[in-house]
Amino acid sequence: MPTPATVRVLTGIKPSGTPHLGNYVGAIRPTVRASREPGIESFLFLADYHALISTHDPVRVQRSTLDIAATWIACGLDPERVTFYRQSDIPEIPELTWLLSCVCGKGLLNRAHAYKAAVDKNLADGRDPDDGVTMGLFMYPVLMAADILMFNAHRVPVGRDQIQHVEMARDLAASFNHRYGEHFTLPEAIIDEQVATLPGLDGRKMSKSYDNVIPLFAPREQLRRLIMGIVTDSRAPGEPKPTEGNAVFQLYQAFASADETAQFARDLAAGIAWSEAKQRLFERIDREIAPLRATYDDLMADPARVEAMLQAGAAKARAVATPLAQRLRRAVGLRSLADLAAAPTPEPAAKAARPVFKQYREADGRFYFKLTDAKGHLLLQSTGFESPRQAGQAVARLKAEGWAACPDLHAQVTVHADAEHVEAALALLRDA
Amino acid sequence: MPTPATVRVLTGIKPSGTPHLGNYVGAIRPTVRASREPGIESFLFLADYHALISTHDPVRVQRSTLDIAATWIACGLDPERVTFYRQSDIPEIPELTWLLSCVCGKGLLNRAHAYKAAVDKNLADGRDPDDGVTMGLFMYPVLMAADILMFNAHRVPVGRDQIQHVEMARDLAASFNHRYGEHFTLPEAIIDEQVATLPGLDGRKMSKSYDNVIPLFAPREQLRRLIMGIVTDSRAPGEPKPTEGNAVFQLYQAFASADETAQFARDLAAGIAWSEAKQRLFERIDREIAPLRATYDDLMADPARVEAMLQAGAAKARAVATPLAQRLRRAVGLRSLADLAAAPTPEPAAKAARPVFKQYREADGRFYFKLTDAKGHLLLQSTGFESPRQAGQAVARLKAEGWAACPDLHAQVTVHADAEHVEAALALLRDA
Repeated sequence: MPTPATVRVLTGIKPSGTPHLGNYVGAIRPTVRASREPGIESFLFLADYHALISTHDPVRVQRSTLDIAATWIACGLDPERVTFYRQSDIPEIPELTWLLSCVCGKGLLNRAHAYKAAVDKNLADGRDPDDGVTMGLFMYPVLMAADILMFNAHRVPVGRDQIQHVEMARDLAASFNHRYGEHFTLPEAIIDEQVATLPGLDGRKMSKSYDNVIPLFAPREQLRRLIMGIVTDSRAPGEPKPTEGNAVFQLYQAFASADETAQFARDLAAGIAWSEAKQRLFERIDREIAPLRATYDDLMADPARVEAMLQAGAAKARAVATPLAQRLRRAVGLRSLADLAAAPTPEPAAKAARPVFKQYREADGRFYFKLTDAKGHLLLQSTGFESPRQAGQAVARLKAEGWAACPDLHAQVTVHADAEHVEAALALLRDA
Repeated sequence: MPTPATVRVLTGIKPSGTPHLGNYVGAIRPTVRASREPGIESFLFLADYHALISTHDPVRVQRSTLDIAATWIACGLDPERVTFYRQSDIPEIPELTWLLSCVCGKGLLNRAHAYKAAVDKNLADGRDPDDGVTMGLFMYPVLMAADILMFNAHRVPVGRDQIQHVEMARDLAASFNHRYGEHFTLPEAIIDEQVATLPGLDGRKMSKSYDNVIPLFAPREQLRRLIMGIVTDSRAPGEPKPTEGNAVFQLYQAFASADETAQFARDLAAGIAWSEAKQRLFERIDREIAPLRATYDDLMADPARVEAMLQAGAAKARAVATPLAQRLRRAVGLRSLADLAAAPTPEPAAKAARPVFKQYREADGRFYFKLTDAKGHLLLQSTGFESPRQAGQAVARLKAEGWAACPDLHAQVTVHADAEHVEAALALLRDA
């Protein structure tokens, strides 16, 4: 079997607001670490077209873009290693949004959770269902599909609330592939079930909506002051302090090694004062953050340098997007007329020219695939899989091993043609 | 008063199907003539992004683009004089579509006639309201608004069924201007109430849906055969023939001078045979069409030449679209971060920086405008006008003549500030 190629992972970052320690621990730090893993090809982008849906203040859009870009680079994102770009620097993305609109049933978007929530709220408040809903909000899933499909990303790490959008991107990819030939990888949502959350100043989850955050790059003195203000109980110096329900301990743990954390727990049990515990927490956080803050401050003072990094990232991203966009334009018929001079006879539609694996989801919620030959005759039909990943793995095996994989897969795949016919089709796909 | 600048007229041409004589007489010939009038700056484009909504055959999209481009050029459209381009060569258009989506209430599109007709048909047939409705269809008016606003067209000649779309483009322009400053001209729909229609082979209106058309560039022998097959009555040679309800006469009239037409009517009254009448019709049409057909045949044999013309047109169109798109990107906040280095203090939003005329339509269906100063204070408020044109003329007078125009306009404009204040604001606008 061939060794698997690198896996392309795409992450969108909405440029809004100033990141806090909770964003750092829960999203930025793990994402930056994951981007350094072998076999991973990371695409990260600042979703400024998306930001226009909710932000109508141009200065804020621009400043947030700088802030967020500087933050991620300061936190160790390596623009040399990853592809880090601004969505609005890729003109192929809005064009792809239009191409996908033409294969996107309106019904699909009617069922989007975010849109339905807006409608439900309007109805509950006695307003018109679409009151205040812009086409930007309604079209959001199509733009997001274009973000993902433009780079044929395999995996898209998202929160639970975004799973449906990745599934819609799969649906649109499948619809386009079905109509125009196999151009798009079907992306998979990756859910991190163990997202680290941090307590905020008041002990509740750190969140802008609770107004209890510690800004990631607060200046050193402000950081100290904020940490000293974390709400604790009234246990006096000398009294043992628990680790359970202890915001100071939980914050410390998010930054310290296992050994440091165990020592901190022992010292708390031995009764160090809250002020001492907070001072040690401040020092531990500042030890990790101080060098990042210095880089951040340098970048914020030199916006032109950040711009140059984003331009370099855009050039890398367009090296992928531009050739694919050209293929897609050809596929739908937006072609140079000069081609017609070279090929005077009408060519058959691309999709009819070779065998095709189609992956899809049935009303039973399970994931299926089938293989048809160049003339559209059914060769293989799968039973339902629990996850798109399992279906994809079976397809990958069939592509890699050909007919030889069929006996192993007999429980999942029904064969509708003779071995020779199936093998010929799989060989064609292997060589493509 | 300053002399009026040239009027920019924008016409979209859907590349679908082969044009027939009815298209030529009703649309192509008058549009080409209008494009040569003094004071008119014509933008004409092949709407291939629109074609993707209904056509899923890539070869057909490409061939139709060639066919329609060759047809219009053969019919006298002068690519040197007008700006003739293919929509999909202007990447700024899909980007503007997204920017407009973010200021477009979904409710506006819910009320679009074409969408509502599709929903009504679905409901009548007992199907889901959005059955078969793609987002391409639903978004059509936003793409069309981008087509128009990208070039700040003053006038858009359309059929009655498209008036609403031009009104939506006005609405989107006004919404964008209101939020981000005055960037867009509010376009006006121009309806030709006297569109010439031709009878087809069976005497009914020439239309593809009746299958009674004479292709515009049918080869000479086929043209003769088709004309000889026009349905006539059974009046024998020698019998006088009426002009009323006489398809042969009506077709002749569409191509001949008044003198020629009068002579033809006299000859019919004198009883020339149908075969003779048809022969003269054929010769009269062929006299006009033959040189165009020769050019058309040359162009169809040299697609690369047509492509080069469209590329030259795209360069002219982008000379307008690219700078405007850059202004629009700046306006919404998609700005180079390097700007922040040059201007460290946040700049005020552009729209607040100068006086603004706002034009809008009230629930009473009438057209209004008001003038506010840089701080948003109301200076002038109009009463309702019958048409956007009348409102626009009053605004133009105020801009051109300043306070001096106010006494004349007292019936239409209420003044809410002193003369000096109004004059200062109008002077600022005049100098901008």
